[in-house]
Amino acid sequence: MHLLSAQPMSNRIQVTIWNEFRHEKKHPAVQRVYPEGIHTAIANGLSVAPDLQCRCATLDEPEHGLTEAVLAATDTLIWWGHMAHGDVQDEIVNRVKRHVLEGMGLVVLHSGHFAKIFKALMGTNCSLKWREANEKERIWNIAPGHPITEGIGEYFELPEEEMYGERFDIPEPDKLIFVSWFEGGEVFRTGCCWDRGHGRVFYFRPGHETHPTYFDPNVIKVITNAARWARRRVTIPDTCPNPAPLETIKAKHESIP
Amino acid sequence: MHLLSAQPMSNRIQVTIWNEFRHEKKHPAVQRVYPEGIHTAIANGLSVAPDLQCRCATLDEPEHGLTEAVLAATDTLIWWGHMAHGDVQDEIVNRVKRHVLEGMGLVVLHSGHFAKIFKALMGTNCSLKWREANEKERIWNIAPGHPITEGIGEYFELPEEEMYGERFDIPEPDKLIFVSWFEGGEVFRTGCCWDRGHGRVFYFRPGHETHPTYFDPNVIKVITNAARWARRRVTIPDTCPNPAPLETIKAKHESIP
Amino acid sequence: MHLLSAQPMSNRIQVTIWNEFRHEKKHPAVQRVYPEGIHTAIANGLSVAPDLQCRCATLDEPEHGLTEAVLAATDTLIWWGHMAHGDVQDEIVNRVKRHVLEGMGLVVLHSGHFAKIFKALMGTNCSLKWREANEKERIWNIAPGHPITEGIGEYFELPEEEMYGERFDIPEPDKLIFVSWFEGGEVFRTGCCWDRGHGRVFYFRPGHETHPTYFDPNVIKVITNAARWARRRVTIPDTCPNPAPLETIKAKHESIP
Amino acid sequence: MHLLSAQPMSNRIQVTIWNEFRHEKKHPAVQRVYPEGIHTAIANGLSVAPDLQCRCATLDEPEHGLTEAVLAATDTLIWWGHMAHGDVQDEIVNRVKRHVLEGMGLVVLHSGHFAKIFKALMGTNCSLKWREANEKERIWNIAPGHPITEGIGEYFELPEEEMYGERFDIPEPDKLIFVSWFEGGEVFRTGCCWDRGHGRVFYFRPGHETHPTYFDPNVIKVITNAARWARRRVTIPDTCPNPAPLETIKAKHESIP
Repeated sequence: MHLLSAQPMSNRIQVTIWNEFRHEKKHPAVQRVYPEGIHTAIANGLSVAPDLQCRCATLDEPEHGLTEAVLAATDTLIWWGHMAHGDVQDEIVNRVKRHVLEGMGLVVLHSGHFAKIFKALMGTNCSLKWREANEKERIWNIAPGHPITEGIGEYFELPEEEMYGERFDIPEPDKLIFVSWFEGGEVFRTGCCWDRGHGRVFYFRPGHETHPTYFDPNVIKVITNAARWARRRVTIPDTCPNPAPLETIKAKHESIP
Repeated sequence: MHLLSAQPMSNRIQVTIWNEFRHEKKHPAVQRVYPEGIHTAIANGLSVAPDLQCRCATLDEPEHGLTEAVLAATDTLIWWGHMAHGDVQDEIVNRVKRHVLEGMGLVVLHSGHFAKIFKALMGTNCSLKWREANEKERIWNIAPGHPITEGIGEYFELPEEEMYGERFDIPEPDKLIFVSWFEGGEVFRTGCCWDRGHGRVFYFRPGHETHPTYFDPNVIKVITNAARWARRRVTIPDTCPNPAPLETIKAKHESIP
Repeated sequence: MHLLSAQPMSNRIQVTIWNEFRHEKKHPAVQRVYPEGIHTAIANGLSVAPDLQCRCATLDEPEHGLTEAVLAATDTLIWWGHMAHGDVQDEIVNRVKRHVLEGMGLVVLHSGHFAKIFKALMGTNCSLKWREANEKERIWNIAPGHPITEGIGEYFELPEEEMYGERFDIPEPDKLIFVSWFEGGEVFRTGCCWDRGHGRVFYFRPGHETHPTYFDPNVIKVITNAARWARRRVTIPDTCPNPAPLETIKAKHESIP
Repeated sequence: MHLLSAQPMSNRIQVTIWNEFRHEKKHPAVQRVYPEGIHTAIANGLSVAPDLQCRCATLDEPEHGLTEAVLAATDTLIWWGHMAHGDVQDEIVNRVKRHVLEGMGLVVLHSGHFAKIFKALMGTNCSLKWREANEKERIWNIAPGHPITEGIGEYFELPEEEMYGERFDIPEPDKLIFVSWFEGGEVFRTGCCWDRGHGRVFYFRPGHETHPTYFDPNVIKVITNAARWARRRVTIPDTCPNPAPLETIKAKHESIP
């Protein structure tokens, strides 16, 4: 885990970008696009925003780079994973889930739809249609007044992307932000918001590992906005209290001996 | 697992009532209220409805009475558990979850808020405030046009119940049906609907094991209505298909070797 | 207003199909497609369902065919209008709105997005993008377990339709049922559910007057299903009651003389 | 219309507090509590926040103080009305509605549930139960992570208030923030959020004219937070465009001459 900046962290939104970082090491086609890893591309894009402080964490670090200390100091966690979802330890998944429910934001990207953490927070299969055919994606902005679409026009295009198509098996989003049109004939709910516990979750579809999607200015703008929108506002540990009554309870007939 | 009726099952809604069935065996105060178990009280209440076919299943049966065959033949599963949530095998929880996501209805009662299956479908802690003080609960009907409140007036009362109070840590319900007023000063979202996968989930608060709540006609009416509302309409196994395009995709520059 | 069937109305869902019925009289291109009016095509399609009892009403009848008696006897009202939205009297709009809020279902079709009644129930502008270019529409089924999609596959196509594109200015739907893909590059939330008062509202996009859309079996199936889903379950007139307290209120210090 | 501060307005959230201002002139019991009007009490409370710039407007000013210029310069409009809802001109209601749909925030207080503007944005009757009995209200915080509850504990109390009880005839809130417990036995969805067009709407229950509710620090904190949450982020006038296709549309058989 490494910080990208030496600036003071106070008052800035603390963003941790988590990447599986396996494709980039194994597949030359991916390495060519993201020689320093998807996480670094995202971190470089986000770090232009003066109010964001980015750090990165990857699967093969101890505790996947997501120690208790890192998560406690994270306002928004960004998640990219694909080929190694099964290698993420359940203990770390539970830890991340606890932090989201306590107030940490989570932005799940692309193939992260099948990440253990996303499935655990959604409660559904999170399955979808998919096709790798280098087709055009046009992302329609359904919510132009929402903080996540600040600076985004009525649509933007990605010339070549993997297709994800409906039905996407997710709970009804609290708010639908983007819907994608695909050249091959499908549609997809590409940007979706949910509250979970005291935290906020945003799913954002683009970013297949063979396409330079995370260098696209609109994609970076959306992730930047989402990091702000989802940021931790509170930290409230879970409790199940047994409080005394606030009002007088009348004694009943002796129904319970 | 035993059927309560010898009538033909065709065309009737197949309801399986699952009960932990431990309190009734260990605690005399519970045994006095539910000598044949909570599941039997519910089954007797629901079986008055000519369109429901009830069977029961309990924790200490093999596979907790929830075999693949039972679940495949269940339209709505009703769940009561409390002291032994931890004894429910993860394999069975995953099986029940799969059936809900494929289309089976699930009605979770009272202390079932902490059941593994409910937490897995919600993605949150499902914690709440609680107090055993034999206090009055008044359940307000927020959705008088909804199928679950058919035959229910603008409110009904339970003279003595355990208190459950907010904040209830659940995802925003797709539809809020009931809100409770408690004598001791709390409120609670007592009836909540969610879609999960192709199935429907209803949480209904009342039913502490020391109170005769499942003999109350309004409570039975709500559970009866919920069994109808949540009933399986489809059975769609999960898939993540890789379809051919429906439209011609234009060849791009030589990006894919 | 005329009934299409002499069968007893009891137990059947009473459907009233309202059509502006102006295009069909003025424009030969429309008359050729719908010689007896759009309402008749829909009524013929729906009347195949043995549980639906259809009647029709049109703009130029007295009270637009929507008398108090007709609406009181209607379980689901289906609405098609376009060129004469402004000719619908406000008094009748208010009457229809009152009936919806009391429990009557409303299914709004296509250009009905700009009908006074739809805008009044939504509270928004209900505007959208549009284009008449005889383009292909593919309607994706986002909710295969929902009653409105019963019998509908994962998508269906209309070879030529008017395009409606996002952003559709509506409140977030309580449930999103269909999303359309258009040949020209747009997407649209084509099937949307809302509760309003004690009634249910479904908006369904297809049906431009120059295309034979209301002869399409899938379109008819969706409207049939929607007529069932939205049907009146209660009739609850609006009140704003001033009830006596249900619990004793303690006298306070003399703060209010 | 008068500004409460001479400070530069740039970068501050422009809040306009609208009050009917009739009770205070006619009823001595109200005048004693709010000698300068409810709007002034709210404005004084909110003006403590350095990021809010407050102005007031009242019914009996020309155009009710809500000229095009005032609304265009307003980020959040706060609304209190009761005895004179009918005196608000429809033209001004439509103007306010247009500004909300374009992006202006709206916070509706207490008896404003029956204001023309609230009913127009909700599409429902907005009716409820009510009782003036000086009873205790306990407001439970259902959403402790939401910006509107910043600084609010798990509940707060108002010693004497008018009762509003369910069923409140509103569309399902996009997010439920507060639920009230009343001494007399009712409950109420006291804080509710909706998006409408590009604007945000918050309804907040408390504030009967005979009680000093708008001097309560928690009530002021909630309204302050709501003014921030609902603030205008965009100004997007309504359009219904007829765009050229973004993709080539294939010529079909000569179905449309």
